[in-house]
Amino acid sequence: MAKGEAEIRALIDSQIKAVRARDVGGLLASYAPDVLVFDLVNPLEYRGSGALRKRAAEWLSSFEGPVGYEVHDLRITAGDDIAFCHSCNRVMGTTTQGKKIDMSWRATLCCRKIDGKWMVTHGHSSVPFDMESGKASLDLKP
Amino acid sequence: MAKGEAEIRALIDSQIKAVRARDVGGLLASYAPDVLVFDLVNPLEYRGSGALRKRAAEWLSSFEGPVGYEVHDLRITAGDDIAFCHSCNRVMGTTTQGKKIDMSWRATLCCRKIDGKWMVTHGHSSVPFDMESGKASLDLKP
Repeated sequence: MAKGEAEIRALIDSQIKAVRARDVGGLLASYAPDVLVFDLVNPLEYRGSGALRKRAAEWLSSFEGPVGYEVHDLRITAGDDIAFCHSCNRVMGTTTQGKKIDMSWRATLCCRKIDGKWMVTHGHSSVPFDMESGKASLDLKP
Repeated sequence: MAKGEAEIRALIDSQIKAVRARDVGGLLASYAPDVLVFDLVNPLEYRGSGALRKRAAEWLSSFEGPVGYEVHDLRITAGDDIAFCHSCNRVMGTTTQGKKIDMSWRATLCCRKIDGKWMVTHGHSSVPFDMESGKASLDLKP
């Protein structure tokens, strides 16, 4: 595996570890200050790591107890200082309201090496929707 | 503007021109044979330019007459041979069933320079959904 690819793999592993531990700071450590994220749910976009931190904190605090998090079908393309990857991600857990969650989505991360450290400068997470019903497809399986 | 950035801008311009002309071949010319696309609507993914060509042909032939297509808020990050960009795209037209369409979505394109030519190897288009209703947000404005 090329060096850049191994480094992006390590970034993803750090995110997996952070989500499982519900560690907002750990998760945000890999995002650039001026990151722009297209997330699963409204609004259209989250601009800057401050907005993303708030969103991540809300998301991770919506779970009670341990969170299962898996990254499937990861494909990385990495050069010396620009990289991107895509995957299908899955989260499993129980919300603070006692609702069981098992949900998958498509994820793209775009990264730049800034001062020697890979940072996510753009992220895009989504599920497709059904053209007839207009409903988001919340039963994807990786 | 750096060279890579200008080249990716030209790739996007060629796609805009192709969509407006409902030119499937022109649109597909910028996609790598092994491209993987996460599209707006089901299914989960389109793997390979053959599957993408079929999808693009269906999409573009669903319109009657001229198609309006705009790419807003384009941000490009480009190195020598790896690049990515994101934007909000808008399509306007009338379907063959006479239904007026004016729809916007988030778009991410990830590219590699292959044999001297920039090609899209991964694309991700989506709208977010509303957590309460489970409905896709089809009224986005760029």
